[in-house]
Amino acid sequence: MILPQITHLVSICAKSGISEAILSPGSRCAPLSLAFIRHPEVHCRTISDERSAAFIALGMAQQLGKPVVLVCTSGSAALNYGPAIAEAFYQQVPLLVLTADRPAEWIDQWDGQTIHQQNMYGSHVKGSFNFPDDASLPDKLWHSKRIAKEAIALAGSYPPGPVHINIPLREPFYPLPEESYNFEITALEPSLELESGNLPAGNELSQSVKDQLKSFKRILLLPGQQVPHAGIRKTLAALVKVQKAVLVTDVISNMAQEGAVVHHDFFGLQPENHNEMAPDLLITFGKSILSKPLKKFLRACPLSHWHIQPAGQVPDSFQHLNRIIRLQPEVFLEYLLEEGPVIDSVFRQNWEKKNSVVKKHLPQLIAKAAFGELSALSCLLAAMPAGGKLHLANSMAVRNVNFLGLGVQETEVICNRGTSGIDGSNSTAVGCTFTTKAPVTLITGDMAFFYDRNAFWHQYPIANLRIVLFNNHGGGIFRMIEGPANLPELEEYFETHQHLEAKNLAGEMGFDYTSINSISQLNVCLKDFFHDSLKPKIMEIKSSAETNRQTLKAIQQKLQKAINTEKGADHKKM
Amino acid sequence: MILPQITHLVSICAKSGISEAILSPGSRCAPLSLAFIRHPEVHCRTISDERSAAFIALGMAQQLGKPVVLVCTSGSAALNYGPAIAEAFYQQVPLLVLTADRPAEWIDQWDGQTIHQQNMYGSHVKGSFNFPDDASLPDKLWHSKRIAKEAIALAGSYPPGPVHINIPLREPFYPLPEESYNFEITALEPSLELESGNLPAGNELSQSVKDQLKSFKRILLLPGQQVPHAGIRKTLAALVKVQKAVLVTDVISNMAQEGAVVHHDFFGLQPENHNEMAPDLLITFGKSILSKPLKKFLRACPLSHWHIQPAGQVPDSFQHLNRIIRLQPEVFLEYLLEEGPVIDSVFRQNWEKKNSVVKKHLPQLIAKAAFGELSALSCLLAAMPAGGKLHLANSMAVRNVNFLGLGVQETEVICNRGTSGIDGSNSTAVGCTFTTKAPVTLITGDMAFFYDRNAFWHQYPIANLRIVLFNNHGGGIFRMIEGPANLPELEEYFETHQHLEAKNLAGEMGFDYTSINSISQLNVCLKDFFHDSLKPKIMEIKSSAETNRQTLKAIQQKLQKAINTEKGADHKKM
Repeated sequence: MILPQITHLVSICAKSGISEAILSPGSRCAPLSLAFIRHPEVHCRTISDERSAAFIALGMAQQLGKPVVLVCTSGSAALNYGPAIAEAFYQQVPLLVLTADRPAEWIDQWDGQTIHQQNMYGSHVKGSFNFPDDASLPDKLWHSKRIAKEAIALAGSYPPGPVHINIPLREPFYPLPEESYNFEITALEPSLELESGNLPAGNELSQSVKDQLKSFKRILLLPGQQVPHAGIRKTLAALVKVQKAVLVTDVISNMAQEGAVVHHDFFGLQPENHNEMAPDLLITFGKSILSKPLKKFLRACPLSHWHIQPAGQVPDSFQHLNRIIRLQPEVFLEYLLEEGPVIDSVFRQNWEKKNSVVKKHLPQLIAKAAFGELSALSCLLAAMPAGGKLHLANSMAVRNVNFLGLGVQETEVICNRGTSGIDGSNSTAVGCTFTTKAPVTLITGDMAFFYDRNAFWHQYPIANLRIVLFNNHGGGIFRMIEGPANLPELEEYFETHQHLEAKNLAGEMGFDYTSINSISQLNVCLKDFFHDSLKPKIMEIKSSAETNRQTLKAIQQKLQKAINTEKGADHKKM
Repeated sequence: MILPQITHLVSICAKSGISEAILSPGSRCAPLSLAFIRHPEVHCRTISDERSAAFIALGMAQQLGKPVVLVCTSGSAALNYGPAIAEAFYQQVPLLVLTADRPAEWIDQWDGQTIHQQNMYGSHVKGSFNFPDDASLPDKLWHSKRIAKEAIALAGSYPPGPVHINIPLREPFYPLPEESYNFEITALEPSLELESGNLPAGNELSQSVKDQLKSFKRILLLPGQQVPHAGIRKTLAALVKVQKAVLVTDVISNMAQEGAVVHHDFFGLQPENHNEMAPDLLITFGKSILSKPLKKFLRACPLSHWHIQPAGQVPDSFQHLNRIIRLQPEVFLEYLLEEGPVIDSVFRQNWEKKNSVVKKHLPQLIAKAAFGELSALSCLLAAMPAGGKLHLANSMAVRNVNFLGLGVQETEVICNRGTSGIDGSNSTAVGCTFTTKAPVTLITGDMAFFYDRNAFWHQYPIANLRIVLFNNHGGGIFRMIEGPANLPELEEYFETHQHLEAKNLAGEMGFDYTSINSISQLNVCLKDFFHDSLKPKIMEIKSSAETNRQTLKAIQQKLQKAINTEKGADHKKM
C-alpha cells in the first residue's frame, strides 16, 4: 500500500532541492526506498554497509552543500550511521537521516530488528523527530508534512548538520500493482522557506571593536577548516601584502597561498623560547585547526582571541577567546584590510623568515632522505594536477601533508576533522566521486584504508577516484608520539601490526593497482596515474614505520638547526 | 604517569572475575589499555575496527557468562560500538564498555576525537557512568572505585547486559620509566557482592495459578532463545512423554529434542484453517522466537499466555500475555510435570502428526531438489560433528536452519537475535573461538559475511573456526518475501547484487578455502572439513537466489499437499 505521509515526505524533499539519496536495503524501509527510487527528481544509490553508506552521504553533502538523504531499515542498521552522523555534526554538513522503525506497539516485544530509535543519535543531530505512524487522520498527515519541512529547514540552516526523522511503518509495505505514486499532490502545499545554508549576515562592526583593533601590533590570522572561498582568499592575500597580519594556514583551511605561513609544524614553537612570535591578537574563523604544536603555542601565549562567526556556538580552542564577532568572515576581513593597523615588522618577519627557511631547506632534506612516506608524498604532491579534490585521511596522512604544506592551494582539501576518526575516509571520498567528474584523490594510511574497505562494496562507477595508500602495516602514528614509542607494548597493542596489502582488494573490486617501493617506481607510476581511466586506481606505497619516524625526526632536527643558524646570522647582522 | 583511579578500576575488574579484555588502539585510552595489559590476570587482545571489537567481546561474553571488557579511545571510535551494544542489551549479554574521553573542559572546543560521550548509548545499556577526571581528592578516588564496583555488579545482575563507563583522562598518559602498577592496593578494598548472573529464585507457585492450570486442555510450550540447559531439556522431554504439553522449538532455543515439534515453519499455519491446533494456554520462557508463521498464528489464536521469568521486563510477543510467573523456568516446569493436566490428545496429535509428515517427506524432497541452499545445508547439518558451537547469521542462514530443524540438538546454537542485525555475525563467532578449543561453525550468507569482514583483521589464531558461506551474490531474503519479489527494483535496490567471493579474503587472511557448486563437491569437502587444522576454513557454497526461491516454494507446496493428504486419510479412518 502506498502511504500518503511517505509520498509527501519524498515530494517535500524534492521540492526543497534534495536530489540525492543513499539507501541501504531492508524490508521495513521499503516504503521509503521505493518512494525515493520512483521520484523522478531524486537520484538513488544503494549501499549495503550502513556505516559506509552514511560516510558516503557525508562525502556527497560536503560537495553539494545541501542535505543528502539516508534511508535505512530498523534496528542496529541505524546505529551503524552513528560515526558519520557525529562527523557531520561537528563538520557542519547537512544530512537528512531517515530511519524506518516499527510502530510503537512493537518496541520491546522481542520482535526482530527493533531497538530504541527515538533520539538515538543523542546530541549529535540538530534535531530528532518522530513521524506519525499512520496518516488516518488529517491532523496526522499534516503533522508528517510539518515534520518533513521543519527537518529539512533545520538541516540546511546555519550551522548546517544532520537531522533525524524516525519513521514508524506498518505493514503492508509494498505498493499494490494497481497503485502509483502521485508526487504532484504536494505541489499545492505551502513550503517552509529554508535559510538555504547561507549565513545570516550582519555588516557593521561596533565602534568599540574598531577602536580596540587599532591598539594591536601583532595580529595573527588563523583560518580553521572550511571549504574554499575565493573572496576570502583574495582578501587574505591583500592583508598579507599590506602587512596587516601574519597569515598561518593548515592544509584543511583551504586558504594556503603566496605569503601564508604553512610550515609552522617544523618551527619547534615553544612559548618560552619564542615570545617574539607571540601575537597580541589572534583572529580565527572557520572550524578546527590541525597543527598541534601551533595550538599548544597559542594556548600558552598571553593574547586576545577574536573569533568571527555569524551565528552558533563558538568553541574556545585556544583558551583565550574574548570576543565573538557576529559577522560574515569576509565582511570582517574587508574591514581589517581597510582600517586595520600595520603590524610590527619584527613579529611579521619572525614568522615569515622561519617559514622561508623551512621552505628553502625542506625539499633538499626530503630529497636526501631514505625512501619513505615524506619523500614519496613530496613527489606525489608535486605531480598532482591542479583542480580536483584531495581527501586526506586521519591520522598520519593529513599530518604528513601538513608537514609538507601545499603552497598555493588549487585543490580543495577535505578531511574528516569533525571527529577526526579513521572510520570513514574511504567512504567520504567515494561519496565525493558521486558528485563530480573531476579527479578525486584520497591519501590514506593502511589502518584507515582497511577499516573502511566496505566503501567500495557496491556497483557504482568511481573511475575518477585515485587512492594513494601509505602502507606501513600498522598505526605508525604511535611511533611518532613520545609516550608509547618506548613501551614494550608498542608493536602488539598500539601499532597493531596488520599484514594486509591492497592488491587483493584491488583485484576483487576491479581497481588498477600499483605497488611502490622506491622513488623511481613512484615516478614511473605518476606518469599516468592521474590520467583519465575506466577504473579507479590504487597506488600502494610501502614503507617502514621505523624509517619514517627516523626521517621525520632527522628533518625536524636539521630544520631546527637551520632556523637557529639563520637567526644567529640575523643577530650578527643587527 | 600512572593514574590511581585506573589502577583501581582494573584491579576491581580482575577481583570481580573479569578475565578478558578487547582493546582497540588509541592514544587517549592508553592508560586504560596499559593497565589491563599489565594486569597479570586479565588477558588482552587488540582489534582495530571497533565495530568488530565489540561483537567479538559479545561472542566471548556469551560463552563466558560474565562481562568482557571493551576499551576504546575517544570520539567516533566509541560510536562504532553501538550496534554490538544494542545486540548485547537485547540478548542480555554482559559487557563492560570503557570509553576514554577528554576531560569536560575540552568537549566542544574543536579538539580532535572529541564528541558527546556521556550517555552516548542511550537506553541500550543498563547503566552509564562518568568517571571522575582526576583522583586528586580522596572522595574522587572513592567515587571511581564505587563506580567500578557498581558498574560490574550491574552488568552481571539479572538480566545481564552492557554497562558503560565513560572515562575522561588528562595527559600525561604514559607511565614514567620508574613507575610500576601496584594492583595489590585494591586487595584491601571492601568488595560489592555481585548477584553473579544467577537468577533470583522464587520456588512456590500460588494456589490460584495451580487451580487455573488444571483447567487448560491444550498447552503449548514454546521456549525462546536461551543457552543450553540440560535440566530444562530433561524436564521438557518428560513433559512431552507424559503428554502434558506440546513442545515447539525453534533452533535458537537450544531445546530441540526427541518429541519436539521443529518443522512448524512448513505447516502453513493459518488461524482460520487450523483452529484444532490453537492452544488454550501458551507457556513461554527465555527470549525471542524465530518462526514468523508461528508468531502470526499464535497472535491470532484466542489463548492465555503465561511467561515464566524470575525478574525484569517481559515483552508481549504474542499479544495475549496475561500472567507473568516470577519463577526459575525449571521450577515451574517441574511443577507442570508433577501437577499439570494431561492435554487433549487430538490437539497433541495435530501438532505431532504434522511434524512427522514433514519429517518423513522433507529429506526426499530436498534430495530431489536442484542443488542450492537447502540441499547443501541439509548435507552439511547431517555431517556436523556433535558438540561444538554453531553460529547462525541473520537473515536467511538462521531461517534455513530452522526450516530443516536440528533434531536432537547436541550443538549449541548462537545467533544475534537481540536486534537481528547482519552486522556482527562473523565477529561474534570469532569471539566465540577465543573462548573454546571446540569447533566453532558459522553458517552465513554473503551479505552478512562481507559486511563484517573486519572480524578477521587481527593477528589472533582462530584455527577452530569453520565458515560455511552461502553465496548467492545478494540479499536473497527479499526474493522470498511476497512484496519486493515482484518489484522492478528487486535486483538493484533490494537484493543489491554483490559480486564478491570469499576466495580473495581467504587468501589474504590465510584461511583454507573451498568453493562448492554441487553436492558431490560438498561431500568431498565434508570428509575433512571439520577435522582439526592449523588454519580456519571457509567453504563457499554458490547457488542461485532464484533457484533457492523456487526450491523452497516447491517444497512448501509439496509438504502442504502431503499434510493435507494425511489429514484426509485420518478423516477417512475416523
